[in-house]
Amino acid sequence: MTVAEIGQKAKAAARMLMTADTGSKNKALEAIAQALEAHMDEILAANAKDIQNGEAAGLTKSLLDRLRLTEARIKGIAASVREVIVLTDPIGRIDNGFINQDGLRILKTRVPLGVIAMIYEARPNVTVDAAVLCLKSSNVVILRGGKEAIHSNSCLANLMREAIRAQGFDENCISLITDTARESATELMRLNEFVDVLIPRGGAGLIKACVENSTVPVIETGVGNCHVYIDSPSDLEMGARIINNAKTSRPSVCNAAESLLVHRDVAKDFLPMAYALLREHNVEIRGCERTREILGDFVKPATDEDYAAEFLDYILAVKVVDSIDEAIAHIVRYTSGHSECIVTSSLQNSERFTREIDAAAVYVNASTRFTDGGVFGQGAEIGISTQKLHTRGPLGLNELTTIKYVINGNGQIRV
Amino acid sequence: MTVAEIGQKAKAAARMLMTADTGSKNKALEAIAQALEAHMDEILAANAKDIQNGEAAGLTKSLLDRLRLTEARIKGIAASVREVIVLTDPIGRIDNGFINQDGLRILKTRVPLGVIAMIYEARPNVTVDAAVLCLKSSNVVILRGGKEAIHSNSCLANLMREAIRAQGFDENCISLITDTARESATELMRLNEFVDVLIPRGGAGLIKACVENSTVPVIETGVGNCHVYIDSPSDLEMGARIINNAKTSRPSVCNAAESLLVHRDVAKDFLPMAYALLREHNVEIRGCERTREILGDFVKPATDEDYAAEFLDYILAVKVVDSIDEAIAHIVRYTSGHSECIVTSSLQNSERFTREIDAAAVYVNASTRFTDGGVFGQGAEIGISTQKLHTRGPLGLNELTTIKYVINGNGQIRV
Repeated sequence: MTVAEIGQKAKAAARMLMTADTGSKNKALEAIAQALEAHMDEILAANAKDIQNGEAAGLTKSLLDRLRLTEARIKGIAASVREVIVLTDPIGRIDNGFINQDGLRILKTRVPLGVIAMIYEARPNVTVDAAVLCLKSSNVVILRGGKEAIHSNSCLANLMREAIRAQGFDENCISLITDTARESATELMRLNEFVDVLIPRGGAGLIKACVENSTVPVIETGVGNCHVYIDSPSDLEMGARIINNAKTSRPSVCNAAESLLVHRDVAKDFLPMAYALLREHNVEIRGCERTREILGDFVKPATDEDYAAEFLDYILAVKVVDSIDEAIAHIVRYTSGHSECIVTSSLQNSERFTREIDAAAVYVNASTRFTDGGVFGQGAEIGISTQKLHTRGPLGLNELTTIKYVINGNGQIRV
Repeated sequence: MTVAEIGQKAKAAARMLMTADTGSKNKALEAIAQALEAHMDEILAANAKDIQNGEAAGLTKSLLDRLRLTEARIKGIAASVREVIVLTDPIGRIDNGFINQDGLRILKTRVPLGVIAMIYEARPNVTVDAAVLCLKSSNVVILRGGKEAIHSNSCLANLMREAIRAQGFDENCISLITDTARESATELMRLNEFVDVLIPRGGAGLIKACVENSTVPVIETGVGNCHVYIDSPSDLEMGARIINNAKTSRPSVCNAAESLLVHRDVAKDFLPMAYALLREHNVEIRGCERTREILGDFVKPATDEDYAAEFLDYILAVKVVDSIDEAIAHIVRYTSGHSECIVTSSLQNSERFTREIDAAAVYVNASTRFTDGGVFGQGAEIGISTQKLHTRGPLGLNELTTIKYVINGNGQIRV
């Protein structure tokens, strides 16, 4: 099937899915979870082909790790499907409503976005996560994963399609584009006739390509150049624990910290204290001149590129600043609008920071690692939006909906 | 100044405007209203140049009418500025909040989008309406109007910039791009570094150009191919009043009806009844074969293009359908997702129609003409969104905001 044909079938499926009830959708989700568990061998065999091809193609160890499925991981994916079953269905919710002066009853209701296209990279678990969140929110999904995971993705998509068809759903509620040439992604980005929203999930390059080439509305996700700023006065031991957690608890994710800013009045005390924790994780420090004076010459000089980088690795850029003004100005310049943190004892400075820093999540005295749908009360999520249109922060089920006003009258006309 | 320079200054102004309080913003709005009233002659003189040029260029009467400012119209614009003053400021509102299991206080707050670009056509009142709604919601606006209104727009923008500067605001909170070459619009559409959202306001051609060429996120507005469907059974006299109101009370606006669908069982009774009202407004009917059999040969045969058209004029496409299924299928095929109406006495059919029709507003037994921010409780609006991302329906002050999560802790780290 061509991309356009897949789009056309998806649009037709969306019309039906729009009116599916919660009970039927939950049964279809349970059928997906059971299919994953029942066909474990098949999935592992398909994944083995991807791993073999990946090794032959010289993929890095970390990419191979993302690609790899195991029995435990598949069980984990099935368990996460069941977590979505218990989440509240956002469709049909009435945000508010009133009777207006003409006697019209006006309800602001929540309806699905329609057809969501997902372009993503090497993780096959995204294939299931995305399909399941879309189905629960009555959205049809068109998946377009990376070529590295094509056998795994095809196997997972086919199992899901069969499972929902057996529950009376149109299998085209979940489609996978198996053509992994660049052109198929570009075609999907311009399929305005059939696709309502495009959500890319992956590195900065993928996101940029979607923003630049897509005519379908895009929700940008994920790039996180997150900062922790240690203010004066502040609890320095707390600050050290926070930057250590934000940097090292899971460096490969978007809510990990990439840069540390330290007020000059506390830098001499703070930097050695923080480094004592960071070096246990072999964190490489790239610092400004003052950082190097305090910590020593082993610190590499930081460049502008370092301050702009999303390392996703055990690397931390460090800068000593003269004031909170300089800290805020630095963050304004380099932020990707994901998660930013101040460690401070000053009420005024915490208020200033939360007011003047414009990001999806702004933290006072807590690790940036908390930014996700589970913590923020949305449950499972499809990514973290760092753009301002539609929503910012975790894209949970509620964020996969749009608005329909439903107005009932008894003959009202406008004068 | 180049478009990029205007963008850069706008972005800098946005940082300050983000933290302006409601009282100061309201004073700046009042200053704008007073400036419009105090410089009436200047505005009229600038507008006279546009009208003169427009006449020389052979603009249509209806375009010249949209372009023309009068003392009464300027007073009306000033009055609408004061209506925005009394609207609730959406900035700083806390949508919800809670203390999570780790003891983090998580607030979901409303913040401005940042820098909003508006590309619009010949109406100079949009210059003031857009600037004022953006200022009230703490958004910086970059205006790019049509060349027909360039003298009027320049005069209005300069008056507003002076007025807000005198109130201590950065004048770059409101900018006008005076270069009306097509290239300046294209450059604005790709100014992702400085512009957060683009809202085009105008005809289908302008909207399409923005969707196709913009890399800045776009909110599509306005195109309305709205239908009224007369079901069987239904109150036919009510139906006739509704289609007459939806078609003729203001045909040039996006919530006016363009097509009438009639169930075959009531067509013979209904069509003459409706036409008796419509012909008083000289409405031209373009109908299907069955419509022509009932009303007569004066009805022109309707083409596919007629069913797809947004006439914005005293023209109505009519089709007799065999069932509500055919009516829904027709609307699904031709709808622009703006406002759709069923006139019916059947509870089942009203439920089906409101569930299966996917549009910003779906009406039962009321005119489509009610779709606007005033009626829906949002107050003044910058347009009607017909896309699904961000919002659908009227774009009021609340819809010109995005989300910032503000999280306060006392040292929490993620385990």
